[in-house]
Amino acid sequence: MAKPLLSAADVKGAWAIIPTPSKDNASDWRATKTVDLDETARVVNGLIDAGIDGILSMGTLGEAATMTHDEKLDFMRALIDAAAGRVPVFVGTTCINTRDTVALTREALALGADGTMLGVPMWCAPSLDVAVQFYKDVAEAVPEMNIAIYANPEAFKFDFPRPFWAQVAEIPQVVTAKYIGVANLLPDLAAIRGRIKLLPIDFDYYGAARMDDSVDAFWSSGAVCHPLVTTTLRDLVAQARASGDWSAAKAFMGRLGPTAAPLFPNGSFKEFSTYNIALEKARMDAGGWMKAGPVRPPYHLCPEPYLAGARKSGQMWAELGKALEAEALGAAA
Amino acid sequence: MAKPLLSAADVKGAWAIIPTPSKDNASDWRATKTVDLDETARVVNGLIDAGIDGILSMGTLGEAATMTHDEKLDFMRALIDAAAGRVPVFVGTTCINTRDTVALTREALALGADGTMLGVPMWCAPSLDVAVQFYKDVAEAVPEMNIAIYANPEAFKFDFPRPFWAQVAEIPQVVTAKYIGVANLLPDLAAIRGRIKLLPIDFDYYGAARMDDSVDAFWSSGAVCHPLVTTTLRDLVAQARASGDWSAAKAFMGRLGPTAAPLFPNGSFKEFSTYNIALEKARMDAGGWMKAGPVRPPYHLCPEPYLAGARKSGQMWAELGKALEAEALGAAA
Amino acid sequence: MAKPLLSAADVKGAWAIIPTPSKDNASDWRATKTVDLDETARVVNGLIDAGIDGILSMGTLGEAATMTHDEKLDFMRALIDAAAGRVPVFVGTTCINTRDTVALTREALALGADGTMLGVPMWCAPSLDVAVQFYKDVAEAVPEMNIAIYANPEAFKFDFPRPFWAQVAEIPQVVTAKYIGVANLLPDLAAIRGRIKLLPIDFDYYGAARMDDSVDAFWSSGAVCHPLVTTTLRDLVAQARASGDWSAAKAFMGRLGPTAAPLFPNGSFKEFSTYNIALEKARMDAGGWMKAGPVRPPYHLCPEPYLAGARKSGQMWAELGKALEAEALGAAA
Amino acid sequence: MAKPLLSAADVKGAWAIIPTPSKDNASDWRATKTVDLDETARVVNGLIDAGIDGILSMGTLGEAATMTHDEKLDFMRALIDAAAGRVPVFVGTTCINTRDTVALTREALALGADGTMLGVPMWCAPSLDVAVQFYKDVAEAVPEMNIAIYANPEAFKFDFPRPFWAQVAEIPQVVTAKYIGVANLLPDLAAIRGRIKLLPIDFDYYGAARMDDSVDAFWSSGAVCHPLVTTTLRDLVAQARASGDWSAAKAFMGRLGPTAAPLFPNGSFKEFSTYNIALEKARMDAGGWMKAGPVRPPYHLCPEPYLAGARKSGQMWAELGKALEAEALGAAA
Repeated sequence: MAKPLLSAADVKGAWAIIPTPSKDNASDWRATKTVDLDETARVVNGLIDAGIDGILSMGTLGEAATMTHDEKLDFMRALIDAAAGRVPVFVGTTCINTRDTVALTREALALGADGTMLGVPMWCAPSLDVAVQFYKDVAEAVPEMNIAIYANPEAFKFDFPRPFWAQVAEIPQVVTAKYIGVANLLPDLAAIRGRIKLLPIDFDYYGAARMDDSVDAFWSSGAVCHPLVTTTLRDLVAQARASGDWSAAKAFMGRLGPTAAPLFPNGSFKEFSTYNIALEKARMDAGGWMKAGPVRPPYHLCPEPYLAGARKSGQMWAELGKALEAEALGAAA
Repeated sequence: MAKPLLSAADVKGAWAIIPTPSKDNASDWRATKTVDLDETARVVNGLIDAGIDGILSMGTLGEAATMTHDEKLDFMRALIDAAAGRVPVFVGTTCINTRDTVALTREALALGADGTMLGVPMWCAPSLDVAVQFYKDVAEAVPEMNIAIYANPEAFKFDFPRPFWAQVAEIPQVVTAKYIGVANLLPDLAAIRGRIKLLPIDFDYYGAARMDDSVDAFWSSGAVCHPLVTTTLRDLVAQARASGDWSAAKAFMGRLGPTAAPLFPNGSFKEFSTYNIALEKARMDAGGWMKAGPVRPPYHLCPEPYLAGARKSGQMWAELGKALEAEALGAAA
Repeated sequence: MAKPLLSAADVKGAWAIIPTPSKDNASDWRATKTVDLDETARVVNGLIDAGIDGILSMGTLGEAATMTHDEKLDFMRALIDAAAGRVPVFVGTTCINTRDTVALTREALALGADGTMLGVPMWCAPSLDVAVQFYKDVAEAVPEMNIAIYANPEAFKFDFPRPFWAQVAEIPQVVTAKYIGVANLLPDLAAIRGRIKLLPIDFDYYGAARMDDSVDAFWSSGAVCHPLVTTTLRDLVAQARASGDWSAAKAFMGRLGPTAAPLFPNGSFKEFSTYNIALEKARMDAGGWMKAGPVRPPYHLCPEPYLAGARKSGQMWAELGKALEAEALGAAA
Repeated sequence: MAKPLLSAADVKGAWAIIPTPSKDNASDWRATKTVDLDETARVVNGLIDAGIDGILSMGTLGEAATMTHDEKLDFMRALIDAAAGRVPVFVGTTCINTRDTVALTREALALGADGTMLGVPMWCAPSLDVAVQFYKDVAEAVPEMNIAIYANPEAFKFDFPRPFWAQVAEIPQVVTAKYIGVANLLPDLAAIRGRIKLLPIDFDYYGAARMDDSVDAFWSSGAVCHPLVTTTLRDLVAQARASGDWSAAKAFMGRLGPTAAPLFPNGSFKEFSTYNIALEKARMDAGGWMKAGPVRPPYHLCPEPYLAGARKSGQMWAELGKALEAEALGAAA
């Protein structure tokens, strides 16, 4: 608890977003203790061994909505113990009000979490004032905890406008953000004045990195399909930035980009959001690198054609990872 | 716990929706035990004395999102004890997943609640299948508990379409619904085949009652501004239905209707929903009949002009109540 | 041109909305003179013979967007000549700006049209001020022309809020409105203070009529599937109002209501609006009473499953009409 | 008419979007011949003298919706004559159906226009099939005319998804597009396979150019506030691309970017779209470089605070232009 806060500059490279692995009966509302703690430890070790720079967890696909309180504590413990301080670990403590969030965040801190990837209570759509004050209150209540703004407009009924970024940039604990899209990236970067490291998704990282040199980190839920894809993206962008030659990074995007399409039903982020957890876990399971396991209720139902698309996305990602492995062997030979 | 389930026909007349009265420090995230239990008991007694037929609580304006677990139990206890079986009491047990909802619903049942006004987990927008299965699972888990579907499209990211009504009508525990609007009332009534009593809001009750003779109950959050307005509406519609002469009921709507307008900022239900709790509590406090008290965080911030509109709405309602009192005295003299 | 303006009270009973019948090549952008003028005359005569009280035309399904100027004049002439003053005839003169609308409305007046069913220019979403001023300007420019507000929120990017109705009620030429839904019917009726006859769709007429005694007219695009259905609805509501016994009207709605469902893809008005013309013309052709003909470009493309639903809707309507004929024969025998 | 079609590669640099200058009475629906032809010629000459690379016109702010047919021909003539072949000139021929669009596009071709900036008929929201077929039909009907897709989602009720771009890229006449945003830029660029030059707005040009080397052209409605700002942006990006040093271009964006904010009411593109014409013309008039003149009906009404923001945006742009002039003088001295 005496650790100093991170700074935006400390958040760098490839950050994996991980699911909460579940046991086989996890879709049954009668089930308890559904977290697969062994798989949790295995995944964390695997990601760190693969060179991942940080871990985000307990967001939407991490089933923060549907784990019981006890399961949350169990999972946090397993995660933090496995990481053992090798990389920063952000858990998720989003609740549907300020006071429960404060309480859970304090528990996470006591367990040794470096930070919380934190969304806004979503029963009512938050106004700008409500959203900003929520982050201020949590930061005031748990001043040793780093905060990653979890900027998901569908989950939190909030579009995270520029004035929001300008205001939360004043909160020292807010050091990073799981960010979506590049439409407003440049003005949002202007609004935060270097105080928050915005993390685009892996699929947007190449474009975002070219738009602004300050973008040197991203999040990747694909990392658990095959981490080498994620670290390769990170390294190619870093090499391009150093050399000024972006051709290899761009060529790699030509291989990575098409894996995104089948994940989004009808190309719609809104439709994806309805089935977010089921789609992401199906994709991860199809990747074959980890066992994400069944979805906790009530979100365990999803149309089969959507799941098939997600699985295809995971398989494509994994195939790309295997091709990269083969290329590395070829290069080494 | 041995009480038989209600039937749709048992849900009749004027059902008050009440807030969770709060102590003066309730907007501070440091506060605990914020429920004003004395005011809770006083309001319940007052409503029953005034002739209200049932009580709904712990919805959006009832701050189900922002009470702590302990506060929920305290409030339920006070509410159920005060009602003492004189009218049916529905608490609210909406949580952000199935298992927490089941656990809380079981606690509510054990405390003696007649039912739960139950919304759908709202982190992800529920698909039709997810929403229906959620109600089935809760009903299976707590079979002695009556369920009122809490059909708020803004809160729950779900538009409660006709097939939803057709499917939840198969669940015996689902006996009523806090319903919004009259746009789809007739087809939705056809879909439920008499198995669920749909409760329109007070402002829509006259129109809904004229549209269909089966509509003989409604919900009223205005009841706590002055219950006589709510019971007068109920009685005038009943008299009209009996006599076939709707002129007095219609004339009364001409007095009641205008009190709604200032409650909705720019006439928008979506905008109202963002500030639902603050607006409703301001309106109630302005009514002068009860002390709703401050809003729990993070929803305690609201633009002053919106609050002024809400207060005006509450004052207009209260003035109508006083006028009705005076007219009753005049008629009696 | 010396005819006095209609009043709201003059608009009564069942108003048919008709398509612009087209020749077989009408979906080809090379085609000209695509209006089937013979079918136009036949349909108008048929509707009037069947007892329809008024005719609305050249709205969305009437292909006002896609007829050439010459075709519009040809169609108006055929329509007005066939009606020959027996019932009021409203054409449609919606253009994408004020000046073109004025010019076309003047031409329609010169041809003998009683009124124009008039929407708002839809390139930009109109603000409230823009929408109101548009109707004021057209009314000022063509003071002898009756105006029916064409209140379609999807077509015109405008939600026709209460203040709109209050303001256009001040324009003497505005005597009626093609109205959608019943959600806001009572407050909108209050806003117009008796100066505009709001016409709900046939499917909503029973409910609207019960909600308010002033509702004694409606529009029906189903009329051209089989006019007896439309006039039966009108007559049963009138009889119910006179007798106070609504049971026969309600029972009839139980037969009519289900014909609506297959017309709306996935139950969505927004989705219906995308394919409005193709769906309505397919429905009408399937009714077998008239030949609506192919859709003019660019709106001639529509997914086959949607068309199948629309055809089913038309067949169901036509079957209801035939059943009514048989029942009338039975009753007469 | 014997001119060969342009290719995507021919569309380069800074393309100005111009309004249709209007005479003082142009907001009156009684007015005719409202185009200020002298100002039209002056503006075209001024832009070309300032080094602008191409001209787009008769879009939303160019009042394609509200000019009469005669005015459109007058304006096209003046515009094309003034340009005299020195830069490519695109007029706008968007109508609310295919056949009128074909007719007007043929007239524009006959007058010597190089291309048409063409939106989709917007009475009904177009489905993907309808939108694609519309462009195919116009291209087939007027094969000598270059087409710029006018991708405005608010005006045309269409979100221009990736499959749209993939399909219209097959049409040889489609050589460029007035494009909005950068959110989907990289996948859309992949979809068009180099066959269409996508033009981002000036405010997005820096970011888009960094994202992809193929982006070497943009549109600018600010050009008529002070063209030097627009050409400076073009030149700094070109220099950065040549040298690999983007610092001067980025620093310039830091000066240009803030002029955008006051143009968008509450930061909303949707709200901007409602008042697009009034806001853009107010901004242009405030720039002082040209006289855009009053707005044609019905879009001439706009809240004063919104206009004030637009004027501020225009003044800021003009001041930046003057500062650039002064800096150029200083550098030359």
